Amino acid sequence: MATVTVRNGIDVDQLVGTLGAIKEQPSISTFTFKATTTWKDGTLNQAEIGEFLHNGERVERPETFRLTGDEPPVLLGANRGPNAVELVLAALGFCYGVGFVANAAARGIELSELRYEVSGDIDVRNFLGMTKETRAGFSAIRANAWVRSPNATVEQLEELCQYVQDTSPVRDIIANPVPVETSLEVVGSSRS
Amino acid sequence: MATVTVRNGIDVDQLVGTLGAIKEQPSISTFTFKATTTWKDGTLNQAEIGEFLHNGERVERPETFRLTGDEPPVLLGANRGPNAVELVLAALGFCYGVGFVANAAARGIELSELRYEVSGDIDVRNFLGMTKETRAGFSAIRANAWVRSPNATVEQLEELCQYVQDTSPVRDIIANPVPVETSLEVVGSSRS
Repeated sequence: MATVTVRNGIDVDQLVGTLGAIKEQPSISTFTFKATTTWKDGTLNQAEIGEFLHNGERVERPETFRLTGDEPPVLLGANRGPNAVELVLAALGFCYGVGFVANAAARGIELSELRYEVSGDIDVRNFLGMTKETRAGFSAIRANAWVRSPNATVEQLEELCQYVQDTSPVRDIIANPVPVETSLEVVGSSRS
Repeated sequence: MATVTVRNGIDVDQLVGTLGAIKEQPSISTFTFKATTTWKDGTLNQAEIGEFLHNGERVERPETFRLTGDEPPVLLGANRGPNAVELVLAALGFCYGVGFVANAAARGIELSELRYEVSGDIDVRNFLGMTKETRAGFSAIRANAWVRSPNATVEQLEELCQYVQDTSPVRDIIANPVPVETSLEVVGSSRS
């Protein structure tokens, strides 16, 4: 009878199986993820996240996730949801969390607590069209983690934290340039 | 009696007032936004987004927003929420949406429809520690917009789309490097 190894809620056997499968067929490591956002009113937008492509094939989810985005009143909104740059900070914390927990599981490290506080500094003058001297996005992001493990040393946890930074998809997206191509289709205008 | 100008749900008078106030006192254009993420189990994490700093002073919201992050089963999760890189795509759509609508309002352009489909390509081998030849994050992101306006020309809408790209905080964060500083505090280990 096979023993299922689950550590930190991660199925380590599945993780090892995934690594083996990708070694056999590298194309199964490729994904295209998607989000659709629809403007509702003012600064209020809604996002839908559902299907994605895995190795070029469509994978559906049982549920489509819906998110609400808005601004606080000082930025012309009504606090109906977090704003876009706050979502980026949450994404970094989520990414670090998944990376830390999965890699800990693979290394035999048990975790009992893991939390990230992520903050980012921004000057909205560029966004408001008032200056080009400051950048539009965050000038700096800080992520502070708190971790507790019953069976790892401080050194092991610090080394793991560095490894997770080096392999984090969202950290890479933020810290290094990603090409972004944007197109517009006008479906109705004053001349149509 | 003053007329309140609201266009696309944006209070244009407030927008103009904000621009004027920042011209008087540039420091009120600075914000620090925050997100706290807590690991729950496996690839499941939860985020809380609430207060932020505006001009160095704490601003609270009536409600703390809570988000759930997870992975699909193929990435060791249970589909309890979108994953971290999908959140980044939603953030880009939200950011573009707010920028388009607010700048349209300022220019007298009325919108009746605005939607973004954002997708990103990723190879998870770097994240899984299998190679350094591919990057950890998205290799490319595409955003396709659909817009309808009763009173703007195609040319005006295309110019606005370009302006929004040039001033989008999230596009800047993705397309250009942001310094990310990460620290770890070990609150419990095998030696403590």
